[in-house]
Amino acid sequence: MTMQTSTPTSHESWRLIAQQLRVDSIRASSTAGSGHPTSAMSAADLMAVLLAKYFRYDFAAPKNPHNDHLIFSKGHASPLLYAMYRAAGAISDEELLTYRKRGSRLEGHPTPALPWVDVATGSLGQGLPIGVGVALAGKRLDRLPYRVWVLTGDSELAEGSMWEAFEHAAFEHLDNLTAVLDINRLGQRGETMHGWDLDYFATRLRAVGWHAIEIDGHDIAQIDAAFAEATATVGQPTAVIARTIKGMGVASVADKNGFHGKALEDADGAIRELGGRPNVTVTVSKPADDRPPQHFSVQQPLGLPRYQRGTKEATRKAYGEALSALGTARGDVVVLDGEVSNSTYADIFAKQKPDRYIEMYIAEQQMAAAAVGMQVRGWKPFASTFAAFWSRAYDFIRMAAVSRANICLCGSHAGVSIGEDGPSQMALEDLAAFRAIWSSTVLYPCDANQTAKLVERMADRDGIVYLRTTREKTPIIYDPGDEFLIGGSRVLRQSGADAVTIVAAGITVHEALTAADTLAHDGIAARVVDLYSVKPIDSATLRAAARDTAGFVTVEDHWPEGGLGEAVLSVFANEELRPRVVKLAVRAMPGSATPAEQLAAAGIDAAAIVEAARALAVHAPKEAPWSIGNRPG
Amino acid sequence: MTMQTSTPTSHESWRLIAQQLRVDSIRASSTAGSGHPTSAMSAADLMAVLLAKYFRYDFAAPKNPHNDHLIFSKGHASPLLYAMYRAAGAISDEELLTYRKRGSRLEGHPTPALPWVDVATGSLGQGLPIGVGVALAGKRLDRLPYRVWVLTGDSELAEGSMWEAFEHAAFEHLDNLTAVLDINRLGQRGETMHGWDLDYFATRLRAVGWHAIEIDGHDIAQIDAAFAEATATVGQPTAVIARTIKGMGVASVADKNGFHGKALEDADGAIRELGGRPNVTVTVSKPADDRPPQHFSVQQPLGLPRYQRGTKEATRKAYGEALSALGTARGDVVVLDGEVSNSTYADIFAKQKPDRYIEMYIAEQQMAAAAVGMQVRGWKPFASTFAAFWSRAYDFIRMAAVSRANICLCGSHAGVSIGEDGPSQMALEDLAAFRAIWSSTVLYPCDANQTAKLVERMADRDGIVYLRTTREKTPIIYDPGDEFLIGGSRVLRQSGADAVTIVAAGITVHEALTAADTLAHDGIAARVVDLYSVKPIDSATLRAAARDTAGFVTVEDHWPEGGLGEAVLSVFANEELRPRVVKLAVRAMPGSATPAEQLAAAGIDAAAIVEAARALAVHAPKEAPWSIGNRPG
Repeated sequence: MTMQTSTPTSHESWRLIAQQLRVDSIRASSTAGSGHPTSAMSAADLMAVLLAKYFRYDFAAPKNPHNDHLIFSKGHASPLLYAMYRAAGAISDEELLTYRKRGSRLEGHPTPALPWVDVATGSLGQGLPIGVGVALAGKRLDRLPYRVWVLTGDSELAEGSMWEAFEHAAFEHLDNLTAVLDINRLGQRGETMHGWDLDYFATRLRAVGWHAIEIDGHDIAQIDAAFAEATATVGQPTAVIARTIKGMGVASVADKNGFHGKALEDADGAIRELGGRPNVTVTVSKPADDRPPQHFSVQQPLGLPRYQRGTKEATRKAYGEALSALGTARGDVVVLDGEVSNSTYADIFAKQKPDRYIEMYIAEQQMAAAAVGMQVRGWKPFASTFAAFWSRAYDFIRMAAVSRANICLCGSHAGVSIGEDGPSQMALEDLAAFRAIWSSTVLYPCDANQTAKLVERMADRDGIVYLRTTREKTPIIYDPGDEFLIGGSRVLRQSGADAVTIVAAGITVHEALTAADTLAHDGIAARVVDLYSVKPIDSATLRAAARDTAGFVTVEDHWPEGGLGEAVLSVFANEELRPRVVKLAVRAMPGSATPAEQLAAAGIDAAAIVEAARALAVHAPKEAPWSIGNRPG
Repeated sequence: MTMQTSTPTSHESWRLIAQQLRVDSIRASSTAGSGHPTSAMSAADLMAVLLAKYFRYDFAAPKNPHNDHLIFSKGHASPLLYAMYRAAGAISDEELLTYRKRGSRLEGHPTPALPWVDVATGSLGQGLPIGVGVALAGKRLDRLPYRVWVLTGDSELAEGSMWEAFEHAAFEHLDNLTAVLDINRLGQRGETMHGWDLDYFATRLRAVGWHAIEIDGHDIAQIDAAFAEATATVGQPTAVIARTIKGMGVASVADKNGFHGKALEDADGAIRELGGRPNVTVTVSKPADDRPPQHFSVQQPLGLPRYQRGTKEATRKAYGEALSALGTARGDVVVLDGEVSNSTYADIFAKQKPDRYIEMYIAEQQMAAAAVGMQVRGWKPFASTFAAFWSRAYDFIRMAAVSRANICLCGSHAGVSIGEDGPSQMALEDLAAFRAIWSSTVLYPCDANQTAKLVERMADRDGIVYLRTTREKTPIIYDPGDEFLIGGSRVLRQSGADAVTIVAAGITVHEALTAADTLAHDGIAARVVDLYSVKPIDSATLRAAARDTAGFVTVEDHWPEGGLGEAVLSVFANEELRPRVVKLAVRAMPGSATPAEQLAAAGIDAAAIVEAARALAVHAPKEAPWSIGNRPG
């Protein structure tokens, strides 16, 4: 039986859709033997009405720019989402029953393995902030009227990130965003903080500037009226706050604690209790609009900033200038910053292209999520804050990788070299943290020309791309127009008789060059490798250096764990030739001091490099280069 | 001139204190050449009244349990805090002027280098959630009437973590917590979202259950009345929302954008404009109370749970059971969990000791912060959630190390071995992330008896101590009562002719043992090392294995970066003997599958270990052991 979607007298047929969504949620999870059916069942009526009447989506054309967006912030309710796809005819019943099986597109929590899923969810409190990003794209970038629907749970309303989202959405007047709050009272292990106190949420939401509608989440007519009101509300986003019953429709689990995340024991009995399988198909309305998305005018070719050898400039400044140049040449670049744009220099872009700059304020989780949301719509987001503060958004970065999102993140003020501000402002773990993100790229330039080129490269790189910049002005050692490929490195000093190799990145490159000069005076030739691409790493250059020298002094403005030194070690782990690596890194917790004092105290300045290189050089061969045959094992 | 602190007619003398706080903030930052004087100046009147009348603190006895607590959530206003210490006579004027100098206790952002500073701040949005933790200690644990005062900025009210704090404080009726909101309108690079719209904040705070008082933050009488009202309010926490002027008192910077984070150019002129240096001392009231803190009764000796060889149990279950046993024997243990206690098994403790269990709901930032706050008062917090979700609190964990906090964190459901729930629920980066925390301890037990013993050990370990547990039941391979020291390891298989060494932890230990059996059938003896202490690492055992065998197969349910494999590589980085390391780890993004399928797909199961070990064994020496003399370089 195919549903007509346009008449209110369809309420009875919508109840059948809801019944099917419940039944199919149970069938999928029971077949899998795991899943969260009761969490799906509470939202079935809400989603039935959405699918039957309000959702504007072409399942045959998931990339249609006019499509609405639906994000399950309560990602564990995935059986419901997949049941909706089945009801819409997008997947078969056979595929529905592959839920949670190896190789299935229907994973335990939704991922973009499915073309109709924008982003991976399952870490609570993320879907709404990401939805804010998509809605921002709709209102500010695409300038198309698609609507972003976000289904949230109630437990996740305790996550601060949700309130970053609520605040930002209201501040930006995102009336194209509708949040559907499934208030089913029961969290994983008992009642939530506020149970069915819908007024509590409504009051908080109105205080933050949302329109809020409280309803019985199982009354089809109320849902219909609420969605109609939400889609007609102008100037502010709307939250439909729905009082629901977890496990609705099956008495043995309905509103009962202890059934979270468990397939129902008696699936057949539950299905009978629900009234059996209706076998309905929903014809989801397609978007009516066909205007093209708005686009920003560009001027080409790209004119990156050019810095003169012998002068000094901060790589953070070069980021800002290069980003502005990139945005002039590429209309898809959009920039976000966390209220530190005069420090990260994102403000250069902001001043020149205010239409494409979005201030995210001090809310790094929302900033990361907005970047993820914008790239859903094909925009190319560059987001920046102090490198230390990206740690605030680490779960969002982790999930962005699961989402296969393409985002560019810049972290400034890396390392002890920021000086007197002290450790709260210093990133000393970010290379490790970003390396440990699936398929990430980790870049750490040492000069402004290199930074500018890498900013250009980042924009064409898939995945999570991280650029680490420095507060201090550092010498320009490369020429404008020099090419720097991701995965490459630069050998800055090399001779036919190098005793040791110094591997550095960012600020320590300059310390390494100073050290190499000192060592040269003492008759010790040191190769210097600028490892600006920490991940992916230039194994070939490192292998050549391992063959030619006694080993490596690696030096990083970072803790010893998980950063540049360990990245170098990993190259050689299972190779014939496994060079010595003297790993210089920050080991003591810094206090306040000047940048030069900080580098010295941390044992990562030129003097420390010289000392380490001297000790390493005693192992250098008398004759060079070594042949592989000389080295057993 | 010494101030009397008890009479309202002191308002004029309090204005002098405020003047001095402004003057000293300028003197300190101008001497340093850096700092945030304008951010300090906006809150000077607020802090003057606090210091003069409401703060109950014995500067000579910072560990007095009855002391109030003062946390600068706006940590960059550190000049003001230090000026307060000087006014109270706790530091000299000479020390004040060491601000931001190398070796000074007066760092750019406050740290517990100073005995009157509870925790390090400077990463915005953290001080209030940590204050919630201290207040929880006061109300639920110590049961003493000390008050927690938190000075916040306005920019940081955009941080979701602040709203986790506001919600939790209201939910717990923390009327011993007073937040002083310094609403000076100007963020780092321009106006905040809401400027001087105090009503906006008041409405939001009342909606979340706080008492809110709006005042002119430069009207001493209003401040006095507000603090009196706040300290008399019962049943809910109070926020004093103060309209202030950034840079108040110096016309050239007052309420002007562009002066954030800069020492004043004309310090002398500014000090003259403020009225010069009053040179006042404040006699801060000491706490009157002398009752001892509440303590929980204990039963000793500690009776850890005992698991029988040959049976199976999940290490996450052992965590829960051991924690409950530990809490019976130690009255300082307090447990927090993020609404997953039936999964982490913190619920075992919760059911037995509800007085010492605090449900933190789905708000991991607040949970980490509460742990930090509680250990300020000497409690021993154990906090748990899924390992993947500790990434939500990574900035709090980073800052907890700067605070030199002692907290025990448990992350369950580690790795691909959780099975069908899929990657959103899997921690695959946590070993790297936690290794890269200063002075952390990273433990990953493989059996329940080992887990129980490590839970005991954790409680006596300083710093950030992280325990990674597994969802699946795994075989019991150790005996109850076996000792496991942090920094140790266990050699599970060893012979006189080991060809290779397999290094594993957690779930891969069992895969390693299976692999070793298979290899033994093929005449390849494999040493198996259970590296349950990933950090600190047992270098001695690893060095012996490097001498005795052809090298290591490391195998971890974790990405390849920054985890167990790289920890092993780092041991040998600069040593004579640098063994081959075949690093098995998860490389592809997982989908849904059974635990066994996940391990196989990830290439970290027994079959993968066998294959890697076979390939490695071809390098084994014909004669054993190798002498160091045989190995050049």
